[in-house]
Amino acid sequence: MADDDHLIEQRLASTTVLQGHFLHAVRDTVSLPNGGQATREYIIHPGAVMVIPMLDDGQLVMERQYRHPMGRVMVEFPAGKLDPQEDILACARRELLEETGYRAAQWARAGVLHPVISYSTEFIEVWFARGLTVGQRQLDDEEFLDVFTATPQQVLDWCRDGTITDAKTLIGALWLQNVLNGSWSIEWQHLSA
Amino acid sequence: MADDDHLIEQRLASTTVLQGHFLHAVRDTVSLPNGGQATREYIIHPGAVMVIPMLDDGQLVMERQYRHPMGRVMVEFPAGKLDPQEDILACARRELLEETGYRAAQWARAGVLHPVISYSTEFIEVWFARGLTVGQRQLDDEEFLDVFTATPQQVLDWCRDGTITDAKTLIGALWLQNVLNGSWSIEWQHLSA
Repeated sequence: MADDDHLIEQRLASTTVLQGHFLHAVRDTVSLPNGGQATREYIIHPGAVMVIPMLDDGQLVMERQYRHPMGRVMVEFPAGKLDPQEDILACARRELLEETGYRAAQWARAGVLHPVISYSTEFIEVWFARGLTVGQRQLDDEEFLDVFTATPQQVLDWCRDGTITDAKTLIGALWLQNVLNGSWSIEWQHLSA
Repeated sequence: MADDDHLIEQRLASTTVLQGHFLHAVRDTVSLPNGGQATREYIIHPGAVMVIPMLDDGQLVMERQYRHPMGRVMVEFPAGKLDPQEDILACARRELLEETGYRAAQWARAGVLHPVISYSTEFIEVWFARGLTVGQRQLDDEEFLDVFTATPQQVLDWCRDGTITDAKTLIGALWLQNVLNGSWSIEWQHLSA
């Protein structure tokens, strides 16, 4: 928008500062709205998708997973990174199957979130899944996680009492609360088997 | 918990892989629950605080700020990083004043969120503020942002329609919705002037 000119920065130069096994970081030089210059460092991320899987009895499929930067086990909705050129719904189906063993007949996109707008390009697409059937999960060699089920009320209680602090899962609860109480609508897609 | 042994990783070694102007990243070697080894790379972050400032008329104080990794202006609640050894409430008061010019007579802690549990140690404390009085803001040299007000209903509408995608702000909306409808309680502290 033209009236955002007093806020917008322009990239003047960009250099890779970390090409790790997992993290890719760049340092950009930008021009500021006042004509000055500054540096901005951030992670380049391919994006990810989170799934809110709803069983026929109303319970939700969730995970407990050790997260090394946190130094503890976290309660989360299933999620994972996009593979190169991977379609978002394909990624959602793949991650749900790999991590939990569930397949879903119906999918609905809720929205998108940006976990760290100051230092990562990451986005996370939020999807609901229902019509679930359980099979065999297919974890990566370096992946260890427990799958369990919880009611929406339990999830909301855990968001309030600090049991859940993972940002994407808290935002899943915001969507869940408003979809279940009818305030926010989502459109279900029926997949062919 | 003892029954989490099948999930927990142990750090074997740690090395700094990036000491940038802003980002500090490490690579840890960890032992996996199955006895194997893996590397984990993540950002070391001092933590931050977000404020949900409520005016006497029920409106909320919000910001519009250009975020370079996103390449666009984002709608957010006020927030900022902890200075070394800074108390969390002191940081909340400082950031609210610097970014918006407001001081608050009453504060209530809501909870904490972790924006990226897979690759950053960052936490964000979530606080409510009320009893607001406006003064002069004190932006950093490299900081450019607009301050505006919105109703809780507008904020929730923007979470639904994709106007707000910033994770901390979406989680602020989850707290706001549940505090305002009486489902979640917070305890107000009255500060002396």
